[in-house]
Amino acid sequence: MATNATGRRKIVVCKDLGATAMLLLTDRPDLEVVRWMEDRRCDRAWLLQNIAGASGVVVCFQDMVINTLSRILTYIRSGPNLRVVSTISVGYEHIDLQVMAEHKIHVGYTPDILTDAVADSTVMLALMASRRTDETSSFVKNNQWPDFNWTPSAFCGPQLSTTPFSPTRTVGFLGFGRIAHAVLRRLAGFGVTHCIYTPRPGAAPQPARDARLQALHGLVSVAPVDLPALARASDVLFVLAPGGAQTLHLVDAAFLRQMKPSGVLVNSGRGAVVDSAALAQALREGWIWGAGLDVLEEEPHVTAMHALVREPRCVVLPHLGSAALETRAEMTRLTARNVLAGVLGEPLPVALDYSTLV
Amino acid sequence: MATNATGRRKIVVCKDLGATAMLLLTDRPDLEVVRWMEDRRCDRAWLLQNIAGASGVVVCFQDMVINTLSRILTYIRSGPNLRVVSTISVGYEHIDLQVMAEHKIHVGYTPDILTDAVADSTVMLALMASRRTDETSSFVKNNQWPDFNWTPSAFCGPQLSTTPFSPTRTVGFLGFGRIAHAVLRRLAGFGVTHCIYTPRPGAAPQPARDARLQALHGLVSVAPVDLPALARASDVLFVLAPGGAQTLHLVDAAFLRQMKPSGVLVNSGRGAVVDSAALAQALREGWIWGAGLDVLEEEPHVTAMHALVREPRCVVLPHLGSAALETRAEMTRLTARNVLAGVLGEPLPVALDYSTLV
Repeated sequence: MATNATGRRKIVVCKDLGATAMLLLTDRPDLEVVRWMEDRRCDRAWLLQNIAGASGVVVCFQDMVINTLSRILTYIRSGPNLRVVSTISVGYEHIDLQVMAEHKIHVGYTPDILTDAVADSTVMLALMASRRTDETSSFVKNNQWPDFNWTPSAFCGPQLSTTPFSPTRTVGFLGFGRIAHAVLRRLAGFGVTHCIYTPRPGAAPQPARDARLQALHGLVSVAPVDLPALARASDVLFVLAPGGAQTLHLVDAAFLRQMKPSGVLVNSGRGAVVDSAALAQALREGWIWGAGLDVLEEEPHVTAMHALVREPRCVVLPHLGSAALETRAEMTRLTARNVLAGVLGEPLPVALDYSTLV
Repeated sequence: MATNATGRRKIVVCKDLGATAMLLLTDRPDLEVVRWMEDRRCDRAWLLQNIAGASGVVVCFQDMVINTLSRILTYIRSGPNLRVVSTISVGYEHIDLQVMAEHKIHVGYTPDILTDAVADSTVMLALMASRRTDETSSFVKNNQWPDFNWTPSAFCGPQLSTTPFSPTRTVGFLGFGRIAHAVLRRLAGFGVTHCIYTPRPGAAPQPARDARLQALHGLVSVAPVDLPALARASDVLFVLAPGGAQTLHLVDAAFLRQMKPSGVLVNSGRGAVVDSAALAQALREGWIWGAGLDVLEEEPHVTAMHALVREPRCVVLPHLGSAALETRAEMTRLTARNVLAGVLGEPLPVALDYSTLV
């Protein structure tokens, strides 16, 4: 295995993983660890300068520049040394998988781990959008509480949970994978009764799996439906589909016009599944009740002027679904272990199988 | 039964119940319904002017003035006609129960109904405080997302749910009644493992009930503890105790100093159970992680200058725990049915049994 001039294998770290995880790398005398230390995104010139001879590189979702860089570094600078790109994310849209496959560079990533943290924040967004927390916390901050003329309907929103006098609730999932299942488990405690979802195109029906989920959570039904039925029947609709051309703008004006006026849309998946302009119109014109978004197609170029940030019934968070201490600690450890295994020529703890993706 | 000059029994409505519930009263030719119609709180002069000869009165939690008014109206104006005070609330701190008992005036209220809506908002507050939504949504609104220098620890907070690598979570309840049980049911879906609570002073232990809850929700344990143990062991502490002298400032500086630095406090019960000044200090100095409050001892006199509203890790909502459409609709119907039954001399659908309270 190739080593650099100092006789040590080199790892370039574009994103500091924090003290605990970094020790897994910096404690080893057989490694040279070069890290970006500035309090801003790793810049391209720095990476190009340092990547020569590197065996591994650590990146994050934000390092979209890796598309370009990976080409450059693979062909020109890093030579045959580069064995692994380890990203601290479940997504890999920022990595050029063609180049990785061509040069047999392993890709480490962090799926599964963040399921629970994202499920927590997804349920939180459903509650916040229903219960209008943006409006009500602003009400307090704008000094309006002392003069609050309470009425039974003031600041009300649709109720996520069932009650004896409102005994059914249907939740819909656009994308019904691990995170959706974790969300459903949480919603069962709120008394949700019906679960519908759209299956992946071409996927075989899974009646046994659905029956198992139904029994496990004490639901009335779990069933696949087509997209129009998903829009029409969902009290809360969760977008948890992967990104890409197949899911681009599945939630568009036509979809939103079919939703219930009391319907709430939550997107914790990928921004581009939802047409932002259509959603803003849907909220402005009352086609649906509200929305909770952790992702937007325009992110991170989202400011106070964005049509959705301006909507009072739209909660917008800056892509922090996995931002729970326990989860992020485990994500950093796994990212370090992935890059370490890669540079040592060992199997990665969690490698992306890109053979079906390129 | 006494009637007024028009031969009809009179109901004074200090708080409009909305079209559907009001029809239950206004549709009846045998009733005279006098209502406060202005878009501000019912004022005292108006009530005194209209209460003469009334058989029933509808009030809300905000009509604190009823303490004084009920004395005045009972002794001077309404005479023996007043049979029922119907409040659209689960609380009755605003009603002078001594006077009610003395004159055998029934009190209608709306307990139980709002359990699920309050439980939803309580879980929401736990998530919002843990996951720092005030800070993160401000981050977006302050145009900081485009330049977000993502790090693994940025905007992280403690995770409500358990995960395979962080497998235990203890929730504590100060006040372990209906709403607490409804919160616990929801938290079970988040994988919470341990539940502790402080029993009501002098209450008999309920090991069978606790074992039933433990089995029902698949928890490791459900157990009573004393107040210091509750403070020390809770990852999230829920204040759901009733108000009054017995619970005043149970959560004080001494209590808060014993909590975990990662601990989150949620108050959906009564404001005065928590010492606001002590909580503000606890947040400012990092004794605990964060807080989510639907009630404060100073409410409604809470503005942007309030020490807790100024704390970035404190979510403050203006007492809207029950503000879900389905719940409020049912609360208004019950309030109307209570006042109606009272003036007709029938048993109230849900009467407060104040015999043990005065």
